Amino acid sequence: MYSEEIQKLLDKNGIKVGDQIMLSKGATQLEGELMPKANIGGKDTVIIKMKDGYNVGIKLTSDLKIEKLSSGVANIGSFPKVALKHDKSAPNVTLIYTGGTIGSRVDYETGGVSMLLKPEELLYKVPEIQDIANISVDMLMSVASEDLSYMEWVKIAESVTKAFNNGARGVIITMGTDAMHYTAAALSFMLRNLDGPVVITGAQRSSDRGSSDGFINLVSATRLAAFSDIAEVGICMHEQSSDGRCIFIRGVKARKMHTSRRDAFRPINDKPMAYVDKNGSISYSKGYNKAEAKKPSTLELKTKFDPKVALVKVYPNSDPKIIDFYIREGYNGIIIEGTGLGHAPVSTKHDEFMWLPHIKNALDSGLIVGMTSQCLYGRVHPNVYKNLRLLSNLGVIYCEDMMPEVAQIKLCWLLGNYGKEKAKSMLGSNIAGEIHRRLEFDEFLV
Amino acid sequence: MYSEEIQKLLDKNGIKVGDQIMLSKGATQLEGELMPKANIGGKDTVIIKMKDGYNVGIKLTSDLKIEKLSSGVANIGSFPKVALKHDKSAPNVTLIYTGGTIGSRVDYETGGVSMLLKPEELLYKVPEIQDIANISVDMLMSVASEDLSYMEWVKIAESVTKAFNNGARGVIITMGTDAMHYTAAALSFMLRNLDGPVVITGAQRSSDRGSSDGFINLVSATRLAAFSDIAEVGICMHEQSSDGRCIFIRGVKARKMHTSRRDAFRPINDKPMAYVDKNGSISYSKGYNKAEAKKPSTLELKTKFDPKVALVKVYPNSDPKIIDFYIREGYNGIIIEGTGLGHAPVSTKHDEFMWLPHIKNALDSGLIVGMTSQCLYGRVHPNVYKNLRLLSNLGVIYCEDMMPEVAQIKLCWLLGNYGKEKAKSMLGSNIAGEIHRRLEFDEFLV
Repeated sequence: MYSEEIQKLLDKNGIKVGDQIMLSKGATQLEGELMPKANIGGKDTVIIKMKDGYNVGIKLTSDLKIEKLSSGVANIGSFPKVALKHDKSAPNVTLIYTGGTIGSRVDYETGGVSMLLKPEELLYKVPEIQDIANISVDMLMSVASEDLSYMEWVKIAESVTKAFNNGARGVIITMGTDAMHYTAAALSFMLRNLDGPVVITGAQRSSDRGSSDGFINLVSATRLAAFSDIAEVGICMHEQSSDGRCIFIRGVKARKMHTSRRDAFRPINDKPMAYVDKNGSISYSKGYNKAEAKKPSTLELKTKFDPKVALVKVYPNSDPKIIDFYIREGYNGIIIEGTGLGHAPVSTKHDEFMWLPHIKNALDSGLIVGMTSQCLYGRVHPNVYKNLRLLSNLGVIYCEDMMPEVAQIKLCWLLGNYGKEKAKSMLGSNIAGEIHRRLEFDEFLV
Repeated sequence: MYSEEIQKLLDKNGIKVGDQIMLSKGATQLEGELMPKANIGGKDTVIIKMKDGYNVGIKLTSDLKIEKLSSGVANIGSFPKVALKHDKSAPNVTLIYTGGTIGSRVDYETGGVSMLLKPEELLYKVPEIQDIANISVDMLMSVASEDLSYMEWVKIAESVTKAFNNGARGVIITMGTDAMHYTAAALSFMLRNLDGPVVITGAQRSSDRGSSDGFINLVSATRLAAFSDIAEVGICMHEQSSDGRCIFIRGVKARKMHTSRRDAFRPINDKPMAYVDKNGSISYSKGYNKAEAKKPSTLELKTKFDPKVALVKVYPNSDPKIIDFYIREGYNGIIIEGTGLGHAPVSTKHDEFMWLPHIKNALDSGLIVGMTSQCLYGRVHPNVYKNLRLLSNLGVIYCEDMMPEVAQIKLCWLLGNYGKEKAKSMLGSNIAGEIHRRLEFDEFLV
């Protein structure tokens, strides 16, 4: 609750929570949506949510002016239920809903953004997708993506399988963006012999913000699921910061590279598999697994997962005893985010920063140790430098052009499904498009 | 030693180690430099180093043909000593040599690349730099950059100070590229009130490769040290993969983003401070600290460093007990590489992946905990989502647009020089250009 003075001022101007207002104080003018009193500032502070999504509080003083710009629409209450259309000639697409910003609205308790949107609200806000395909909604869970674990990934993989077995030609998964690329990588391994598109999408900006990207992403994802012949897991998000076409990035080659931009998801050591124009047309960019209409579905689920694989980053002055910690904790694998071509300190004069004996200890203890590069772009190589040979000769597996995060998920999945010996031999070989034999010149910073 | 058969074939064709040769076998043709027998393949395998720097071994069979293309120059033996020129009208520049690929040649023992070049060889190979400035060479150390620790950083910082106190107007530091951006960040903090340019440079390709970038980088770095008015620490490397101009990136905003490309170093959340054209002209791009000719130098050394700060990455299924490990090991700070806007799992239902209580434990134990984003680009924000507020309300310091690696080095440096209380309040404020109030639209993936 706001203080009595503020409430009086609001009432005088006919302003309710959710309305667009202008706050003026001296030379300062701030425009935004009036928020209910939340946990920032004192009771005599007016809180607004600005267009960029951030909350600002202004203290009530005698020179504070409040002006109403327009009535609020955010606090819209319950949406009308949207009837699911069904057109026999349209393709069947299943939308698996898991949570995230694309299904979020302002939480009037905290002033932050929470997962509040119901699936029928999603369909109400983006009615276009029902004109593209017959949409079935699978309201699987509502979890912020940073809180997802492999247990949720397994549930999602099972839902995808169910959808294909029930006749879907493509599947959309809506989720939070933070762990989207991790989820995409996990699904890329878990869903073997996929015979249709699995399109993961979401939003970088919540749906109550004018700048939300979720609508265009969802419409583009629906087009891919309904019409593309790509039988891979991928991420469909904005290609650019402005609204334009969307890109469809291979699940094992996508990474969130910006905290807030709409074009945050980029292909690493790869090109997008396809583009979806605003007019709906799909153009394909490079080799991908083609969907072939097979009945019954060839899809094979391999969802076992050994989470005891650590991702360990090497940096100057980093403590190699971290390796021993993971050995003690019963880990079965370690993926090192080395520097450059795949380095860790192996020739330093300072024992406390010397990684070599600790890595040897891990290998001697039966752990699988893989090497990737924190550069992200490019390929590790076990031979160029003397220091690299010291590591590769020990038995460290150099993971080619795989991203560290992808190598970690791959090793968890390999250990879960194939056992240690096979996992070791499979880590450095391509399974789901995660290793490319040759990197193209134009696959850097695109 | 090669097998007798191979040696015979080499002798017959007048081929010595170091020569450029062509190996032909069926449809395969490989061109490269003949290497001495090293630790790859058996005795009957001919090893060549290809133009891209990688070694390839071909087994001797009756259909293997060896042809000499040109005599070797790599095995050049000792270089003539280069006399240091001195021209009173030219600016004084000190070159601090620390090791790395820019001072490397093929190691004929292992076939890999080792640090063998002596500083006079560097000057012999790049005589141009003596036409730009009076070069004094400080042969400080010869360490691969991944083996550098803060103890070496302190020595480098002391050498820089000595150089300025001895009348240098600028300083060049040559080093390996793997830890170049880490070193640049450390020096940016250690060298306070800098009054001249400190230009770090190196090479992505060793100097025995035709594609080496080291020469152009070194010439450009010399121009910056001799003529630019930038009083900051920065990295001077290729702007593009082809030979063209070089960029000068602020030390706290540079990152190695590719394992092998010559344009691997990129500004993150920043623009280059300057460009050096092939013709030598310098153009300046955005605000920087201007050098003012002050005598004596205003430079103040602050080199204390507490290495007990861990960089901890959060990813799905990651083990939060790693936090307790660092508490037990007596760490004083932790920088978290969170997801997106600065998340760690704080609402997950799976206790084993729940980071919140462990982070609280670290804070309760007196550690400083900072939050950065593994996206690298963009800014963390403590307020947008409910999950973020749970962390920021605990006392986690959100590190704005700082890169994780920079925040880690900054906290080590703050703890070393200012103690815990001051370090805590200074972590989130700008000191050396590491925090920008506003990110520009064109500072993503450039």
